[in-house]
Amino acid sequence: MKLYTFAPAPNPRRVHMFLVEKDIELEEIEVQIREGANLLPPYSEFNPLRTVPVLELDDGQKITESVAICRYFEAVQPEPALFGTTPLEKAMVENWHRRVELEGMQAVAEALRNSNPRFEDRAIAGPRNFAQIPALAERGLARLGFWFKDLDARLKESPFVAGENFSMADISAYITVGFARMVKAQPDESLEHLARWRAGIDARPSSRVGT
Amino acid sequence: MKLYTFAPAPNPRRVHMFLVEKDIELEEIEVQIREGANLLPPYSEFNPLRTVPVLELDDGQKITESVAICRYFEAVQPEPALFGTTPLEKAMVENWHRRVELEGMQAVAEALRNSNPRFEDRAIAGPRNFAQIPALAERGLARLGFWFKDLDARLKESPFVAGENFSMADISAYITVGFARMVKAQPDESLEHLARWRAGIDARPSSRVGT
Repeated sequence: MKLYTFAPAPNPRRVHMFLVEKDIELEEIEVQIREGANLLPPYSEFNPLRTVPVLELDDGQKITESVAICRYFEAVQPEPALFGTTPLEKAMVENWHRRVELEGMQAVAEALRNSNPRFEDRAIAGPRNFAQIPALAERGLARLGFWFKDLDARLKESPFVAGENFSMADISAYITVGFARMVKAQPDESLEHLARWRAGIDARPSSRVGT
Repeated sequence: MKLYTFAPAPNPRRVHMFLVEKDIELEEIEVQIREGANLLPPYSEFNPLRTVPVLELDDGQKITESVAICRYFEAVQPEPALFGTTPLEKAMVENWHRRVELEGMQAVAEALRNSNPRFEDRAIAGPRNFAQIPALAERGLARLGFWFKDLDARLKESPFVAGENFSMADISAYITVGFARMVKAQPDESLEHLARWRAGIDARPSSRVGT
């Protein structure tokens, strides 16, 4: 089994943080995405989506979505549970994880990929080129500001994003808050619940992967 | 336990189709979203996100994301499995389901909500208003055309979207193909693998919910 990856990028970093929390080690092959190695052969033939990470199983099957890679390892090694244990916990991790991705991670990605010259004509990751839409970058920044406040409000009522326990929703939220530096946005200091939660995750060894 | 819903809309319809496949019946409360009842009290106080569906449990807890509601019932009643059984199947359902949502469902939603006068200033579902971005509607239509072809290519190599078995990925993909009628887009007749798969799902009783 091999993980094709570039740990500092936000999607791979989610997988690495998950693996550290699970105490799972894998053979890793680094793909130099900053030099565009993912867009050219041989990588673009190995993974036509041109994305990292990819988990290649011993029989050659490939899992190309970060959260799908995490779910694979959750099923192989259930403890510690990062997608919930009871039916309600499983539902709540899915519920909050989706909200983190749709309201937070997607907002940062839209802000970054529709404004940064590095992503000209690459506004969407994948096999096809799409032009940047400046209005989408603006909207992304506006949504991100709302998301920081909404996340703080959630963390006022709950120790972790999906409830009482650390989960995949915390991993994606934590990495998204860091990723927001790429568009020069960070939570206001007044968001004290978000700050308390973030400091708690800073203290976990898994937070240091990819940095 | 109560399901607040409006079955013809694509997100609730996913949940209803899932419940029919599982042979689960629930108390349902219809929310008249076409008349805007979700945007006003009392519903907007019950669910500040203003979305349907919502599953309200007997203790008052609410699950507000369609796929999280489905995962709740998958955990409560595992058979028939719609999110996979083995670790690899679970990973592949997540993998393909995400791709259906990101490449297909999101493309239709962007095309519709950024062009139809009905969604003026409501380009994103949720508690806040966002203006339409015409370029995003155009991009959504372009992406949808690619998605139909990519889905056909996937269904050439696999009987169902995530592999050998019918899964949540088929439910979301099937409903997205139907939903595309709202932006006057349908797969070309030459996409024969998609057509074979679609006809197979048309024949399932679950396909008729919400129609």
